[in-house]
Amino acid sequence: MGRLAELFRPETVGVIGATDREGAVGRAIVENLRDDFAGEIVPVNPKRDEVLGLECYEDVESAPSIDLAVVVVPPPIVLDSVRELGKAGTKNVVVITAGFSETGGEGAERERKLRELAEEYDLNVVGPNSLGVMSTPVGMNATFGPENAEEGSISFMSQSGAFITAVLDWANEQGIGFRDVVSLGNKSVLDETDFVDEWGEDPDTDVVIGYLEDIDDGREFVETAREVTEDTPIVLVKSGRTDAGAQAASSHTGAIAGSERAYEAGLEQAGVIRAESVQELFDSARALSGLPEPESDGVAIVTNAGGPGVLTTDAVGDSTLQMADFTDETIERLNEAMPDEANVYNPIDAIGDADVDRFAEALEIALADPNVGSAVVVSAPTAVLPYDELSEVVIEKSETHDKPVVTCLMGGDRARDAEDVLRESGIPNYFDPSRAVQGLDALARYRDVRQRAVDEPTEFDVDRERAREILERTKDRDDNRLGVESMELLEAYGIPTPTGEIVDDPDRAREVAESIEGDVVMKIVSPEISHKSDIGGVKVGVSDDEVYDAYEEIVTRARNYQPDATIVGVQVQEMVDLDAGTETIVGMNRDPQFGPLLLFGLGGIFVEILEDTSVRVAPIGEGEAREMIDEIQSAPLLRGARGREPADIDGIVETIQRLSQLVTDFPSILELDVNPLVAGPDGVQAIDLRLTVDTEEL
Amino acid sequence: MGRLAELFRPETVGVIGATDREGAVGRAIVENLRDDFAGEIVPVNPKRDEVLGLECYEDVESAPSIDLAVVVVPPPIVLDSVRELGKAGTKNVVVITAGFSETGGEGAERERKLRELAEEYDLNVVGPNSLGVMSTPVGMNATFGPENAEEGSISFMSQSGAFITAVLDWANEQGIGFRDVVSLGNKSVLDETDFVDEWGEDPDTDVVIGYLEDIDDGREFVETAREVTEDTPIVLVKSGRTDAGAQAASSHTGAIAGSERAYEAGLEQAGVIRAESVQELFDSARALSGLPEPESDGVAIVTNAGGPGVLTTDAVGDSTLQMADFTDETIERLNEAMPDEANVYNPIDAIGDADVDRFAEALEIALADPNVGSAVVVSAPTAVLPYDELSEVVIEKSETHDKPVVTCLMGGDRARDAEDVLRESGIPNYFDPSRAVQGLDALARYRDVRQRAVDEPTEFDVDRERAREILERTKDRDDNRLGVESMELLEAYGIPTPTGEIVDDPDRAREVAESIEGDVVMKIVSPEISHKSDIGGVKVGVSDDEVYDAYEEIVTRARNYQPDATIVGVQVQEMVDLDAGTETIVGMNRDPQFGPLLLFGLGGIFVEILEDTSVRVAPIGEGEAREMIDEIQSAPLLRGARGREPADIDGIVETIQRLSQLVTDFPSILELDVNPLVAGPDGVQAIDLRLTVDTEEL
Repeated sequence: MGRLAELFRPETVGVIGATDREGAVGRAIVENLRDDFAGEIVPVNPKRDEVLGLECYEDVESAPSIDLAVVVVPPPIVLDSVRELGKAGTKNVVVITAGFSETGGEGAERERKLRELAEEYDLNVVGPNSLGVMSTPVGMNATFGPENAEEGSISFMSQSGAFITAVLDWANEQGIGFRDVVSLGNKSVLDETDFVDEWGEDPDTDVVIGYLEDIDDGREFVETAREVTEDTPIVLVKSGRTDAGAQAASSHTGAIAGSERAYEAGLEQAGVIRAESVQELFDSARALSGLPEPESDGVAIVTNAGGPGVLTTDAVGDSTLQMADFTDETIERLNEAMPDEANVYNPIDAIGDADVDRFAEALEIALADPNVGSAVVVSAPTAVLPYDELSEVVIEKSETHDKPVVTCLMGGDRARDAEDVLRESGIPNYFDPSRAVQGLDALARYRDVRQRAVDEPTEFDVDRERAREILERTKDRDDNRLGVESMELLEAYGIPTPTGEIVDDPDRAREVAESIEGDVVMKIVSPEISHKSDIGGVKVGVSDDEVYDAYEEIVTRARNYQPDATIVGVQVQEMVDLDAGTETIVGMNRDPQFGPLLLFGLGGIFVEILEDTSVRVAPIGEGEAREMIDEIQSAPLLRGARGREPADIDGIVETIQRLSQLVTDFPSILELDVNPLVAGPDGVQAIDLRLTVDTEEL
Repeated sequence: MGRLAELFRPETVGVIGATDREGAVGRAIVENLRDDFAGEIVPVNPKRDEVLGLECYEDVESAPSIDLAVVVVPPPIVLDSVRELGKAGTKNVVVITAGFSETGGEGAERERKLRELAEEYDLNVVGPNSLGVMSTPVGMNATFGPENAEEGSISFMSQSGAFITAVLDWANEQGIGFRDVVSLGNKSVLDETDFVDEWGEDPDTDVVIGYLEDIDDGREFVETAREVTEDTPIVLVKSGRTDAGAQAASSHTGAIAGSERAYEAGLEQAGVIRAESVQELFDSARALSGLPEPESDGVAIVTNAGGPGVLTTDAVGDSTLQMADFTDETIERLNEAMPDEANVYNPIDAIGDADVDRFAEALEIALADPNVGSAVVVSAPTAVLPYDELSEVVIEKSETHDKPVVTCLMGGDRARDAEDVLRESGIPNYFDPSRAVQGLDALARYRDVRQRAVDEPTEFDVDRERAREILERTKDRDDNRLGVESMELLEAYGIPTPTGEIVDDPDRAREVAESIEGDVVMKIVSPEISHKSDIGGVKVGVSDDEVYDAYEEIVTRARNYQPDATIVGVQVQEMVDLDAGTETIVGMNRDPQFGPLLLFGLGGIFVEILEDTSVRVAPIGEGEAREMIDEIQSAPLLRGARGREPADIDGIVETIQRLSQLVTDFPSILELDVNPLVAGPDGVQAIDLRLTVDTEEL
């Protein structure tokens, strides 16, 4: 394990504020610890000599050395207790006491000081406002909750203590065991990233699961989780998915809500499997903790009942999996082994009088098929099918073929004993076919996470200094928005733009126009005027002869429209034939948790009305940039649908990557929009640009 | 009850093929009946004098009068038995025996004869290939399944017998009771529509639920279910939703698969609430069978735990419900009643130390709020919150305010007793907050079904005779497809088309062109040439002087392209400015189960690439036609998004209705496409038409 080894496997646990007063949290913790803890319990309370039969110490100094301290003293003396612990050399502290940042004002100040103390003494602090921690390998229940966890290989973190108490009793009933459990509380010091990191290093944690309402540092989490998910699956419920939920979460934890789209993109990039409900969380965790990895997406269904077989097939259709296409040999073998009335095509319907032997044969033949990656056994209860024997067969076949098999033995109570037998071998039984398939789906999704090649962002050769100069221009201005006058920024990062220049007199305008082949486009450049066309500030198809007058006209119109506007000049630009390409948009805005969030979509109605966009947290590599394009529904338009010439997709991919580099290099860029980026068959060109700069960050 | 009263409430049940041979179906049925049946059991078997202690009769003739006969004799003698029953005056027959249409060939012939017998003797036949029927009010279990149903108010039909055995045991465990249960089998005579109809007339059936793999006659089902759902909710799992599932369903029941889109539209139009899984089916049924109807969509959440509260809020966000916006008075009352740390905004977090009294107060205040239509009580287990007392409070408050309240008392075993108490009062407790909200959502969806005004299709004054003449033209042709030459068909049904005529000589072409203001469009008319533009068969913007030559050119090109094509002539048509409107498509194809399925969408990429379309089963009224427009994602483009002039939506609505009338009047129209129907600000015009006619149907 990692640096939190002692937090979860302490030899001595101190309870600072231990008491035997009925109903007190300080008593509940000592009681819970006393139940099973393999190490020594050290109660500390100046007012007692003994707590629940254990020797109680006056203070930390006089107590034996403490590996992990659980602090339950009243809010005003928490800081003193923690300082004492720090001085005495304790490195792991769980602060149960509430009344910190969640109460605002004074509490927030107290939490700030707690963080300072943690830094001063190099402490691992859980909480404050935590239910506590559990560690089943050492029998430690250092929480004040009513339930203890059973032993298992799932490590579990929760930003809600109540969520832990709510699921533990149920989990015990279902035979779901845990390894480490932590109630994160206010996450003043240790947060989700620390625990993901820790459990990633624990060879005995098979799955990390969590209930989170926010993620403190999205980018750090993505980086860490990306590494961890190479070996250990992470399944999370991130609540506050919906607008209503996000609002509720923010009033619950005081978290600044990042956007759901950023979470969605960030967690996906991190390789996290996201669950939308408690049930889905545990259904996925059960599959991931006990079953082998499926080599392919083909699912075989073996059943004794047509209806449930069809329902299971629908569930496969809804998932990322497919119904396995049996080989001819499989069909032949099934035809020999099954009665005439059976259906030997997937789903295999061994029909109502199928006994255990027939199930065994069908499952054996199905799992031997190279196109089958996993299987679901679905059965309606019948007199000829003892579930306990069936479960033995399922276990044996799954192990022989090293392929994941899940079951859906229908019929309530009848299945209970068999369920226990299956669970011992890591095979989950689900009530509903759709949940069984969802379990298999989680396995396949995790396999894809493990197998994906996350390419490092390409480092393009760019002119960073020039970009910095351009951004710094905003310093001298009232306005922190930049427009077409900053097209050079794109040039500095190697993104093609039309030839052109911003000029501030009509003669120069004409010179520039003459240097450009064909007619030109002229646009007013003023930070205060954003809807340039609406005020007559744009002229298209201007010939060299007309340039002088056009300049005067555009400037006059702008002055009439807004007399106090700063007129930077007029842009004289090469005409780009918009019809020869497809208008796309590449944008970025900064998410409070995840940082720069890149967005891609087709221009106009596609973004504004159909909201057909894809997002990624920057920086991204080539693969992810390409995914952004593939993901939008209107992507076929770029690939040449309806008789269009295919657009230069590689050019778009490169532009997205270069912009990813730009916004990563300059945290001062708060928002950026290249709109449109015209993608023609022979290349792309950025026609217009808008960005907002944080002048403080420059 | 209706005409099936005696089927479900018989006084005598005959078992034709009764036996006491161990393991025989004929024994299982007698055993099941003997358990609880209030009436008389009449075993019939020529080889026995007694079956399980009951007098056994040689044949139906010698037996006492039988209200309901359950037939379990071998396939070859089923027909004889049914004939005997018919002669003896029995009206209700359940054929358990398999070996009918599901086996093809001989079996299918046997089933055809069974249907004839049913007609001859006016029999209500369930099956063949059925598990049987149950009726709890008379304690009748006339199935050979291993489980009996408990009494309740849910009536349940299933196209899979195994599905019934699979869920009954579980349902009993959950305390879910049933009224009537029927295993539909092959549906040779009685099908889903008959049972929906029957249960719709039964005042004691609170909810109809079903598992179906197909619907025999979609239009009849829609009509019947529409009436039934005015008083009784119907919740169905229709399997075969996905392509894979549909294939599996068709090999299971031999059903001709209708399209999923037709089922989706048809069931929605019928007012059926569709469930996607077994769990959802029963979660919805539990809510619908016991709770009052919510008056509004505002949901209040009362909890003692922030995290689960947020999860529940997310579930509300995912549903069709909304978080209730509390009135100022509610906030004030909550502020007075709750401790300072509580959150009085919805979700109400009464915090971890909330006892039953605090829950009671919070729930009382929330339910008194006029903006609250329903409530969810979500609790994590704590020492101060006895669930049995909490459940009493929930029942009382729900009854006082006559508003639906569901609970999510987390914590496994701890909640069992409370769950039983709640269930007695019709309040379902759910394991997962998302399922609790889904239960409430089913209530609101059903309320919307009850309240919706399904308007009768408008009967437009049309020229049906002229339409018939046009369609009959296909009789004399090799080809059953019609194109622009049938634009008169649209005119006959009052759908605006551009002025024009199909002519067969260039002089007449010129005359027509001169009678039309401005330039004209000219198109080749030939049933064999569908891609007219591609072969140069279309000329746009032709002035009167050019018409003669254009005619010759178009015809020559067509002849060169396809020498054997029938050239009907050339259409000379008024120019319609396509840019002045939005191109839409109204289409129809005939579904094997539901009949004419109307489709609406915007033209081009919207239909072809984004698949942004809406469908309805015809005939439809104005409201449904309008919904078809509102449903598509690109609808804002018709309403004037991005600076367009709003299109004549009423004109589109009327056109859809008129086409609905046309395809309903003429079942011979197999497919029809009006593409484009150009919708401008001042009206719509159908520019082009293609249809396929079933010449046999004419």
